[in-house]
Amino acid sequence: MTKRLKIVKIGGNIINSETALNRFLKDFSALENPKILVHGGGRKATEVSKTLGVNSLMHNGRRITDASSLEVTVMVYAGLINKKIVAALQAMQSNALGVSGADANLIQSRKRPVKEVDFGFVGDVEQVNAQMILKLLEAGLVPVFSAITHDGKGQLLNTNADTIAAELAVALAEKTAVELIYIFEKDGVLKNVQQNEVIEQLDWETYQSLKQQKVILDGMIPKLDNCFYALQNGVKKVVIGGEKLLSDSGQKYTQVVLDE
Amino acid sequence: MTKRLKIVKIGGNIINSETALNRFLKDFSALENPKILVHGGGRKATEVSKTLGVNSLMHNGRRITDASSLEVTVMVYAGLINKKIVAALQAMQSNALGVSGADANLIQSRKRPVKEVDFGFVGDVEQVNAQMILKLLEAGLVPVFSAITHDGKGQLLNTNADTIAAELAVALAEKTAVELIYIFEKDGVLKNVQQNEVIEQLDWETYQSLKQQKVILDGMIPKLDNCFYALQNGVKKVVIGGEKLLSDSGQKYTQVVLDE
Repeated sequence: MTKRLKIVKIGGNIINSETALNRFLKDFSALENPKILVHGGGRKATEVSKTLGVNSLMHNGRRITDASSLEVTVMVYAGLINKKIVAALQAMQSNALGVSGADANLIQSRKRPVKEVDFGFVGDVEQVNAQMILKLLEAGLVPVFSAITHDGKGQLLNTNADTIAAELAVALAEKTAVELIYIFEKDGVLKNVQQNEVIEQLDWETYQSLKQQKVILDGMIPKLDNCFYALQNGVKKVVIGGEKLLSDSGQKYTQVVLDE
Repeated sequence: MTKRLKIVKIGGNIINSETALNRFLKDFSALENPKILVHGGGRKATEVSKTLGVNSLMHNGRRITDASSLEVTVMVYAGLINKKIVAALQAMQSNALGVSGADANLIQSRKRPVKEVDFGFVGDVEQVNAQMILKLLEAGLVPVFSAITHDGKGQLLNTNADTIAAELAVALAEKTAVELIYIFEKDGVLKNVQQNEVIEQLDWETYQSLKQQKVILDGMIPKLDNCFYALQNGVKKVVIGGEKLLSDSGQKYTQVVLDE
């Protein structure tokens, strides 16, 4: 592949709003191939769970996936959301192929070992089938990943979508130049929440110090860990930004870099 | 492709039972490539609909798919059932790729025109992307189709799984030798229901006369119409049989043929 591969991950803020999703997909479809989309779940899984009487158990802010939750997750992520995105992209002339990690054995994972907490049917990525993904890209397809993987022994597993995007980026970086783009509810990593001011370039040292100062905290930490993991493993460029990142060139965003 | 392509369609009788499904998938995984699996929905969609408070409307025994029913169908067929089958096949060393017709634009359909009845989001197949399916088969993949298609304008549509199998067979018959295998709840087309005796070879004339005699009726008619449609359009061989058709060589089944 001669052109840089773009891997874009979107989260609940976009998936929860039909307007935001369609606007984003229009921007995404306008990106040149090769490209990959990774999506999380959003509110729909919680809604369906509630209606079906499936309780979402949490432990320190992390979801515990029992058998019933896994069924709902697979239905909503790999079924409803994935196929809606694929149909919408097809209408925009992007030849989308919706996949989970089980499909074509693209992402194999291992059920997270039980320590103090049993997170249930949650998988940590073990292996990405980069060769098959390249074949699909070379056939002109646009893979759209839901955050479901499998263990190779018949068990589907729920996997963090940010992690999937980073693991795909790292595996594919061995074969081609990769850019990783996280799109989330803010315009980037903020200097502080009050002023809504975006850090335009975030290096490892600054990251460490902002963590100590509690400027960067909570869900932002695993996301940024994924960013640095990608950069440390051959991914060319990693950015984090808001909904309009792909379309609005005036939009501020954060580029994550290893050194200043 | 030098070897005959086998397209196998399974229905609710297999999908509703975990034991039957696993036994069948073992048989299917033992078939040589190239092969394609098409699956219907089964009881799960009805169960989920009921729990979610979505009513299944029927008209003369045919389902009417409103927006809520379509969501459930996509969740259960393209999500839960499709991914469970894919993960199980992967564990059996079959490199399954679960798809709907929207994925890679494999099957485009048209919303059924409203006449006396509005069937809702139901699609009649218009176009099969045989070239892309061949590419997937040549990559060593085993496509697993759920009975969901799209209209190319962003709308997902519910499509009869028997029809999908027949349309795939016909489109691929232009490129390679195809055998179409319907697996359902009986051992084949029966001479009469009382004796459970299987018609081993059913030709067009006999079919017409058995319809007149009301020996063949109800859901069996559209299924057999699909069989003859396939044979009339280049498919080499069409058989209908029971759960053990792929594994038990002593098992009776019906071969559908054009002439005696």
